[in-house]
Amino acid sequence: MTVELICVGTELLLGNIVNTNAAYMSEKCALLGLSMYYQSVVGDNAVRLKALLETAKSRSDIIILCGGLGPTQDDLTKETAAASMGLSLVEDQRAREELVRHLQRLRRPITENNWKQALVPEGSIVLYNANGTAPGLIIEGEKNTLILLPGPPNELIPMFENQVYPYLHSRQPEVIYSKMLKLCGIGESMAETEILDLIEKQENPTIATYAKTGEVHLRLTARAATEEAALALIKPLEEELQRRFGTKIYTDREDVTLEEAVASLLKEHHLTVTTAESCTGGLLAGRLVNVPGISEQFKEGYITYSNEAKEKLLSVSHETLAAHGAVSEETALEMAKGCQKAAGADIGIGITGIAGPDGGTPEKPVGLVYIGCCCKEHSYVKRFCFTGNRSKVRESSVANALTLLREAVLNEVAP
Amino acid sequence: MTVELICVGTELLLGNIVNTNAAYMSEKCALLGLSMYYQSVVGDNAVRLKALLETAKSRSDIIILCGGLGPTQDDLTKETAAASMGLSLVEDQRAREELVRHLQRLRRPITENNWKQALVPEGSIVLYNANGTAPGLIIEGEKNTLILLPGPPNELIPMFENQVYPYLHSRQPEVIYSKMLKLCGIGESMAETEILDLIEKQENPTIATYAKTGEVHLRLTARAATEEAALALIKPLEEELQRRFGTKIYTDREDVTLEEAVASLLKEHHLTVTTAESCTGGLLAGRLVNVPGISEQFKEGYITYSNEAKEKLLSVSHETLAAHGAVSEETALEMAKGCQKAAGADIGIGITGIAGPDGGTPEKPVGLVYIGCCCKEHSYVKRFCFTGNRSKVRESSVANALTLLREAVLNEVAP
Repeated sequence: MTVELICVGTELLLGNIVNTNAAYMSEKCALLGLSMYYQSVVGDNAVRLKALLETAKSRSDIIILCGGLGPTQDDLTKETAAASMGLSLVEDQRAREELVRHLQRLRRPITENNWKQALVPEGSIVLYNANGTAPGLIIEGEKNTLILLPGPPNELIPMFENQVYPYLHSRQPEVIYSKMLKLCGIGESMAETEILDLIEKQENPTIATYAKTGEVHLRLTARAATEEAALALIKPLEEELQRRFGTKIYTDREDVTLEEAVASLLKEHHLTVTTAESCTGGLLAGRLVNVPGISEQFKEGYITYSNEAKEKLLSVSHETLAAHGAVSEETALEMAKGCQKAAGADIGIGITGIAGPDGGTPEKPVGLVYIGCCCKEHSYVKRFCFTGNRSKVRESSVANALTLLREAVLNEVAP
Repeated sequence: MTVELICVGTELLLGNIVNTNAAYMSEKCALLGLSMYYQSVVGDNAVRLKALLETAKSRSDIIILCGGLGPTQDDLTKETAAASMGLSLVEDQRAREELVRHLQRLRRPITENNWKQALVPEGSIVLYNANGTAPGLIIEGEKNTLILLPGPPNELIPMFENQVYPYLHSRQPEVIYSKMLKLCGIGESMAETEILDLIEKQENPTIATYAKTGEVHLRLTARAATEEAALALIKPLEEELQRRFGTKIYTDREDVTLEEAVASLLKEHHLTVTTAESCTGGLLAGRLVNVPGISEQFKEGYITYSNEAKEKLLSVSHETLAAHGAVSEETALEMAKGCQKAAGADIGIGITGIAGPDGGTPEKPVGLVYIGCCCKEHSYVKRFCFTGNRSKVRESSVANALTLLREAVLNEVAP
């Protein structure tokens, strides 16, 4: 079955926003085993949208249109799609009720043009929208199916996840089953080298690798007639990858982030952590606090950007700073020890480095970062030379600090 | 003149990468005053690419194709474009030399298929590539111009900036001049309401509004025969906007961020700042440290996620926490005062709130955030009810904390 995307919105043609919806939906469609040959973007213009939709109908089975479902005169995706399928618009009672409820919750008045959003093409499947005023729609025709979705990602993603994905899945004769293994503490090329033999002979299941900052994700995908059969195809491959990568795999769940995996590990072993950050200036703590409910494990953190703050808050010794400099193995370790003690935590992490663009020297270039970790009685320190701009160096530092924290905990609790 | 984008690459159709090239080029084309009505994505498939290119030629003057210029069999954008324009491929001597030089620098062997990259459609303008092996190409036909560019952004962006933009500019009979005003401390709808009269009668120059988290950006664009004339058109509008929005405009420069504007203000007035963060967990400090050279203004910060840490590090009183709770006006103010004192800084900022998804109550719902600021002898505290998920609530808190910090400094230094 083929699927095609049409994103409607002048803001995309003007480059005001990046089309993340297209990447999101394309990845999901690929996961379902649907073939996508075309994506298009068109503005809020009835004539051009109609022409594009007719072309799409002639070459693809399913057409997903996103954007242009709002209440204003500009928004004409629904009207154009209904006309193209020969359907008139009728009011949907529940859509009207949800619209009223949603606007009341936001304490926004209902304006005359809002009512337009309760109209749906007759006979269509209505996808009610918990996060906005525009319902999504599925219009099943003889030859084509049109799926209309709201443009804002916070409305589109939950609607796709909960309503469109299951619908598309039910129309696929084959089952596609996919599993994600997420790795840290290994680079993409190293990870690929380790499994080159598996990639070269792959057919079903397949392995796709994705490089993320400080992480590598591996997606295993199998097609089969039933879910059991697909699972059975994936299982031996997954076991082989588990054998090869061991504890470098921090999760086998698509929706778990590195900070969530680290937080679970800390919780499981009743360990508390604290942070002392220089060049990252709070971003490591910020990522830990991404995890709701981290408060039992992470109670406080320190940002010590100046040398004085390192001495005052973390008791880094003046001599260490003078002899080795703020960006050194010794300072990173004393920062880790200092915050561990000051916070009374089981684990302290210290990060110090040169994020650039200025401040580099031949001996200590931009991108040089030391990360120290004191986990109870054990100490670790690592040296990194990251590439990229200031923001990339800082992001890489944070990902590698989470990885070092994880390794320290695994060492501590190893039997 | 109309322009159309065709991005070639199966990785886009599979959702492996986000199409940032499209947003980048669209914004540049809009700046040049070119009208773009369509963008498309197609895979590395000669038949489908050819069909799409013919359609594009029938409806747009200039077609920019990006991707598919690599050395492999899959890469066929150049061959398809040349055939469509009735041109044969000939070797370009300089392209061949640069190819050899580039691969030697990378210490990569030259393989047989690399030579294909030195072939160009006869009579085309060659855009030599300092960052990769694929030259870009401009093919000027009678009716259409095709522009072929490499897909990797680190090759495409410098080539567009240095070669394609000037080329397109030279073909535009008019000069397009654009200026950005960035505002904080005002919402998008409020900002639009304030200038509705200007937007309604706009023609040349035009005003476009962009909503960002905690900010609103206004782009003023004028077209004229000369740059002086365009500037003269913009000037009165800019003055009118300055008059209406006053200090809410934090910069009139496209490349200045809110944290940079705040850092400059602190530097100018020799003021130091410190942070005490609960729900944002270091993200405010992280944004301040985005600014290289902030170290004179920002020396240290505190992450106080637990009540104990608020008492221990910031001397927030036990009674305040017991009587009003951690998320309250009183606690936010004591956090601000506490960090100001502990760090010996001129200004202290405290943030406390409920980022969700759990922890909300009818009296204190998810999204409720208090931000306190003590600037020398003056104190400020603001209450916010943000919408969106955990990460959105935290981002909004940080942007509004920067805004409150800026307002406090402006009050302090006001004559």
